[in-house]
Amino acid sequence: MSKMKPSPISPLAPKKFPKLPPIAGVSFGVAATHSYYKGRDDLLFMAFPQGTKCAGLTTRSSMPSAAVEWCRAHLPQGQARALLVNAGNANAYTGKAGAKHAESLAKTAAHVLPCPLEAVFMASTGVIGKSLNLPPLTRAISKLEPKLSAKADWQKAAQAIMTTDTFPKMATCKVKLGKAEVTLNGIAKGSGMVAPNMATMLAFFFTDATLPPSVLRILLRDAMPSSFHAITIDGDTSTSDTILFFATGQTHHGAPIRGAKDARLRGFRKALHALMHDLAQQIVRDGEGISKFITVKITGAKSNLSARQIALSIANSPLVKTAIAGADANWGRVIMAIGKSGEPTNRERLKLRIGGISIVRRGAVLANYNERPVARHMQGRHILIEADIGLGKGCAEIWTSDLTHDYIRINADYRS
Amino acid sequence: MSKMKPSPISPLAPKKFPKLPPIAGVSFGVAATHSYYKGRDDLLFMAFPQGTKCAGLTTRSSMPSAAVEWCRAHLPQGQARALLVNAGNANAYTGKAGAKHAESLAKTAAHVLPCPLEAVFMASTGVIGKSLNLPPLTRAISKLEPKLSAKADWQKAAQAIMTTDTFPKMATCKVKLGKAEVTLNGIAKGSGMVAPNMATMLAFFFTDATLPPSVLRILLRDAMPSSFHAITIDGDTSTSDTILFFATGQTHHGAPIRGAKDARLRGFRKALHALMHDLAQQIVRDGEGISKFITVKITGAKSNLSARQIALSIANSPLVKTAIAGADANWGRVIMAIGKSGEPTNRERLKLRIGGISIVRRGAVLANYNERPVARHMQGRHILIEADIGLGKGCAEIWTSDLTHDYIRINADYRS
Repeated sequence: MSKMKPSPISPLAPKKFPKLPPIAGVSFGVAATHSYYKGRDDLLFMAFPQGTKCAGLTTRSSMPSAAVEWCRAHLPQGQARALLVNAGNANAYTGKAGAKHAESLAKTAAHVLPCPLEAVFMASTGVIGKSLNLPPLTRAISKLEPKLSAKADWQKAAQAIMTTDTFPKMATCKVKLGKAEVTLNGIAKGSGMVAPNMATMLAFFFTDATLPPSVLRILLRDAMPSSFHAITIDGDTSTSDTILFFATGQTHHGAPIRGAKDARLRGFRKALHALMHDLAQQIVRDGEGISKFITVKITGAKSNLSARQIALSIANSPLVKTAIAGADANWGRVIMAIGKSGEPTNRERLKLRIGGISIVRRGAVLANYNERPVARHMQGRHILIEADIGLGKGCAEIWTSDLTHDYIRINADYRS
Repeated sequence: MSKMKPSPISPLAPKKFPKLPPIAGVSFGVAATHSYYKGRDDLLFMAFPQGTKCAGLTTRSSMPSAAVEWCRAHLPQGQARALLVNAGNANAYTGKAGAKHAESLAKTAAHVLPCPLEAVFMASTGVIGKSLNLPPLTRAISKLEPKLSAKADWQKAAQAIMTTDTFPKMATCKVKLGKAEVTLNGIAKGSGMVAPNMATMLAFFFTDATLPPSVLRILLRDAMPSSFHAITIDGDTSTSDTILFFATGQTHHGAPIRGAKDARLRGFRKALHALMHDLAQQIVRDGEGISKFITVKITGAKSNLSARQIALSIANSPLVKTAIAGADANWGRVIMAIGKSGEPTNRERLKLRIGGISIVRRGAVLANYNERPVARHMQGRHILIEADIGLGKGCAEIWTSDLTHDYIRINADYRS
């Protein structure tokens, strides 16, 4: 059982939470199973109508959780009828028993709905290596089924999947698709063990649009580089990262859309990207112990990949992150992080700006460099670091949090 | 001027400091230049007799300091007459002015000794990107010269090169070489910005043996993988890392040694390696904010390089380091770190031990796993993490520190 004291809400939490509207065809409920947490919901059970299509992306960890493997096995069919998410236990590194537990969860949902087993998707987040306490979960699934409702509160869904998160992450929009207007809802969780290529991060998207799995997959994938792949909290990548996108097909918008290049998708594509961007930034805003939101922009690198590696070298550097936590305009540590990246750089060509203020030229600090406006920028909640490498056209943008006493407090106490 | 409060001495500091004997031919002195620190020595000036040979290794950062570039330019000749080390300012990312400052330092030493300019070596450690305050340094060099002494206290030398270090790092031994006994002394500094491939780390070795630069270089290089390349504090690599090895040639041990394969070098090679191993571990023992010394041993990887990457993925993981700081037997985070390494691994074949106690088998925790002895091990000062990947014969060992509140305190306050 967790002895974790809840953290105060992040200073970078949104001031207002959006009210998510219903999505035609989506009904859900939440429950407190008491299997890990006390006194809070920790299970989300969602049901979708026949014909719901889905696509998804999962962690690049070589130690994937049982839920991740379950999803991978069934994503190719692209048919979804249910989503189960439990918080507190990741069911990761739990061997054959863990795989059986995942199957039991799916079987329970498939039995009570009823629906085909392979149409049940799931995600588990929490402690790694601990056997799932199955009976409270299966009991809760059975009890929830009659109560699943299209009018249920989406904020409760976003809260039920939280672990060390300090606020629920939600986003929504309406967009024209062909002849109709459709709705897009997204919920996510993530706070630590968050690094590019999927983090301890779950995100689920829902729409009433009618789209085949192949289109859902391409739309998701195309929006990743400037959303969930652009964030890092601590450079640690989870065993359980999962993004799933469900389209219930309850709204018809003219002739079927068969490919991602269909011109009618333009607005929808933008809307999905905006939602993903918003939720990815919300995850950083809730980065464990965050006091400042940091944007690292690299231009002029040899390639986009090289720019990304340089940006990550800065964003994951403990010395850069602690300097920012201390509101210290210590740009020398950014130089250090660029120098250690292993990427092609040139000391004399590098340009560095913090808070929009130029700092270096020809391998040294500018003669007229005035630290005062940079120091003032460092006092704020949003820190902008921009480096132009001066070697090519590669660019990248990464968002991260600072490294504070609260990160240590949260992570030296979490679990036992 | 530094506002840094001095940290209390590391709990992992050696109980006793060795007394370093004189090295025939080496004389030195230290001074407080007040150019950065108040009330402490921050300049080391050493002189060597004619015929002194040297070799060295410098940072792999693409943003090397002026002192690093100075050493690189003159190491190929392998002739040394002086060593200058200043603490507080790294003279890194200081452009052409920085290069001129380095030259001025060397010129001052070459003038007062006197000796050829290219026989002066130097290292600078401290803040990056700040222009060196030259006059106090050159004045101190001139003033020190008449006071250089073969009987000077080596502990003072080791103290004068410290930055955030909490204790001076020294090692010494005597060893038979051919017909004679020679002495080996080593001093080092390093506490943060320490990662493999040389860290914010300076180390200097001195011997009275008579050895050519090529042999010195090979001996240094061969001992690196299991000494200075096996340590990481924070994964951050400095612009200023320098290791130099000086042989004064004051002791003659029979026929000249021309190659590193000379059988007479066997004991000397071992002794140097022991010194390097000792000093590298001392640097970790003084890792910023350290409360526990962590050894990560990987076996059974596809290759030694792959083993090293996996070991570093564990050793640099903020979540592993904070769990250990909290004495939490959270082995799931070690699994996470192995999974995110990007190296070939196999979940079912992996074996993991903490404190010598087996934890997993076939992709799950052992049925009879008892956390109590692991929890007890985690309470200690020395933490041992061993993973067998089960795929090959690659192995590696890395030493690191935990990630504590004190690391944040030190690094969020350092500099301004």
